[in-house]
Amino acid sequence: MSDEFREIAAGLAAVAKGFYGRGWLLGTSGNLSAVVQREPLRMAMSPSGVDKGELKPEQLLSIDENARIVSAHEGKPSDESLLHIRIVKDRGAGAVLHTHSVWNTILSDQHAGEGGVTIQGYEMLKGLQGVRTHEHTEFLPIIENSQDMPALAELVGTTLSKHPVAHGFLLRRHGLYSWGQTLAEAKRHIEILEFLLETIGRAMHIQGRRSD
Amino acid sequence: MSDEFREIAAGLAAVAKGFYGRGWLLGTSGNLSAVVQREPLRMAMSPSGVDKGELKPEQLLSIDENARIVSAHEGKPSDESLLHIRIVKDRGAGAVLHTHSVWNTILSDQHAGEGGVTIQGYEMLKGLQGVRTHEHTEFLPIIENSQDMPALAELVGTTLSKHPVAHGFLLRRHGLYSWGQTLAEAKRHIEILEFLLETIGRAMHIQGRRSD
Amino acid sequence: MSDEFREIAAGLAAVAKGFYGRGWLLGTSGNLSAVVQREPLRMAMSPSGVDKGELKPEQLLSIDENARIVSAHEGKPSDESLLHIRIVKDRGAGAVLHTHSVWNTILSDQHAGEGGVTIQGYEMLKGLQGVRTHEHTEFLPIIENSQDMPALAELVGTTLSKHPVAHGFLLRRHGLYSWGQTLAEAKRHIEILEFLLETIGRAMHIQGRRSD
Amino acid sequence: MSDEFREIAAGLAAVAKGFYGRGWLLGTSGNLSAVVQREPLRMAMSPSGVDKGELKPEQLLSIDENARIVSAHEGKPSDESLLHIRIVKDRGAGAVLHTHSVWNTILSDQHAGEGGVTIQGYEMLKGLQGVRTHEHTEFLPIIENSQDMPALAELVGTTLSKHPVAHGFLLRRHGLYSWGQTLAEAKRHIEILEFLLETIGRAMHIQGRRSD
Repeated sequence: MSDEFREIAAGLAAVAKGFYGRGWLLGTSGNLSAVVQREPLRMAMSPSGVDKGELKPEQLLSIDENARIVSAHEGKPSDESLLHIRIVKDRGAGAVLHTHSVWNTILSDQHAGEGGVTIQGYEMLKGLQGVRTHEHTEFLPIIENSQDMPALAELVGTTLSKHPVAHGFLLRRHGLYSWGQTLAEAKRHIEILEFLLETIGRAMHIQGRRSD
Repeated sequence: MSDEFREIAAGLAAVAKGFYGRGWLLGTSGNLSAVVQREPLRMAMSPSGVDKGELKPEQLLSIDENARIVSAHEGKPSDESLLHIRIVKDRGAGAVLHTHSVWNTILSDQHAGEGGVTIQGYEMLKGLQGVRTHEHTEFLPIIENSQDMPALAELVGTTLSKHPVAHGFLLRRHGLYSWGQTLAEAKRHIEILEFLLETIGRAMHIQGRRSD
Repeated sequence: MSDEFREIAAGLAAVAKGFYGRGWLLGTSGNLSAVVQREPLRMAMSPSGVDKGELKPEQLLSIDENARIVSAHEGKPSDESLLHIRIVKDRGAGAVLHTHSVWNTILSDQHAGEGGVTIQGYEMLKGLQGVRTHEHTEFLPIIENSQDMPALAELVGTTLSKHPVAHGFLLRRHGLYSWGQTLAEAKRHIEILEFLLETIGRAMHIQGRRSD
Repeated sequence: MSDEFREIAAGLAAVAKGFYGRGWLLGTSGNLSAVVQREPLRMAMSPSGVDKGELKPEQLLSIDENARIVSAHEGKPSDESLLHIRIVKDRGAGAVLHTHSVWNTILSDQHAGEGGVTIQGYEMLKGLQGVRTHEHTEFLPIIENSQDMPALAELVGTTLSKHPVAHGFLLRRHGLYSWGQTLAEAKRHIEILEFLLETIGRAMHIQGRRSD
């Protein structure tokens, strides 16, 4: 394991611990990855079925562009590795994070009929890469959930090209994906989108109430 | 105290501390156990009335299949030990966890008329042992609360055989029980079920609102 | 400072830190005390206006039954010391804790018209000293808030004698008081009552919703 | 870097870590400052775009009254430095804190039509500097959000003189500003105002419900 891999893995483990503490990765849910090398593609990927509050850097797996393990490591990469790889390729991302929060689960279902969640007018949006004003409109597409990972990866690819400026997407009743050039940027994006989804979810109660 | 007991006890204390932090074991509520040996049955059981945020491994008690203390330890095993023992026997569980969360308390009451909570269509369900798809339907039976522990243990036994694939059950206005082959699996099941109960509880507000 | 005082003060500081973490003592709100000696009365009392997340054992003040400082300490005991002393005298309490949580603030206002909050049928009630069954009915009286501390202490005394089995009371739009024979018991009572007030507050939304 | 600056910077970093933990500074949002020297003005200011959970004292920047860096430090001070400077000058504040919480975001939008949030009758208000009774009425003005910082700083100045006793203000769909003579006082004010905004936001659900 190279020093670079070790450092990336330590970063992923630290993010995992923090997000687990916030309840965004309970029950071994969610997964995290970062690019180690582009050509040929090598990624550090969280293993399947591990407790994210206890994830150790040495548990991260090195995978190639087909989600095969290329390190001497034991373990099985996350089932959703194909989605991470697709995002890395289509968006040039350096890190991909996937969380299961109560609010992203609820919103991914409530807004499924509209095909996505529209977020606009919040200062927090400015923290998304390339956004310069709170007047920005972010559309988070919602993709129907599936257990067929190659098919889902294709659907993710189609969705990403249909929404070229989206900073993330939701899998229905499943969770949130976001990414960034760096792990720090991906972490920032997840925190911002989780914050905004919770804000919209909670505001929905009160707005409903006030318009009665 | 054997090394094996010590290790199991340390695992239970760590889970207790984490769950206490999340507010699932406040006020000395809840209890935790794990199997140390099957024949004759020896279990590590949390003592009655202790602060779960401060639980020390050496406070765990060794009990037999009648909930009698078999170690030289002081202390009184949890009143609900008979329920743990029943679950261990009927499900072959290696660990049993019982939490009191705000959301499990609310849902156990709201759905009492239906005899249980039906959870379906969530990706999180896949974290339950043996579940392969989010299309799974989990039915969490609700059992009327009682202070008659032998009678309640019987009722738990009846409920478990009536719902052979349930991964947990609720005691009405009391709390959640879940279990697993290992402590890690039991912890995962509790986290998943708590997450899903909170999701359903919060979604109920908004869904009601939107259908007005 | 005696070893006994030091130990009691360390216990109070630890509880303060934990409750601050849960958001029950924000903004220097709330206060904590414990009896060091009965005759003449000596109590360890939190000082006025300190950050409860940073409270050090050596900041605790030793006061007498008139809330006068009897140690060489600097500082000003909490304005509400007279309420603590009244509870210690009328209930024989060994420790008194007072929290400001979002849910106790809301419930203390919503139920003011009924003179208190009635809590019944929850297993959590069994953690209150002397309660043997979830069928117990706990009535938490609500006292109108005031800045006249001697008058408020009198009103607390009247309320305690009118409700001889209450384990706590609410000051309207202000906070919760509870107590115990020991600090551990007082901490347990606060955790239980905070849990139950949150449960009732959250259930109120859904119950309203379902009865539409 | 002087010892005084270092101490102030350490204080700001500690507050940042605590508020980040509560979810009030997610996604590199929010900013913190404190006065190091009045004539000429020197302030310690958090840099733009850093993770507040990881903020190190040595990352704090020393700026002058025009928000120019005067230390040898690298980095870019927060875009909102002009607002901090305005508050320091107009209120004589020693520290200024700005948080993005879910509840302050929601309330800043819900009450925009009334020009501010009125908070009255809560004991927590007594923690605001100069307030002696819960009967106090605090009016938190809401200012329309903007990316034109010099213009926004002017608007903040106008708002502060129009509301000379306000302890904070909200930027619409953006966040909360508060301040104090000392960092401890500013921290206390933020905690109190965040608590009260959450209380009002949650009570709005139930009050609506009960008046149906």
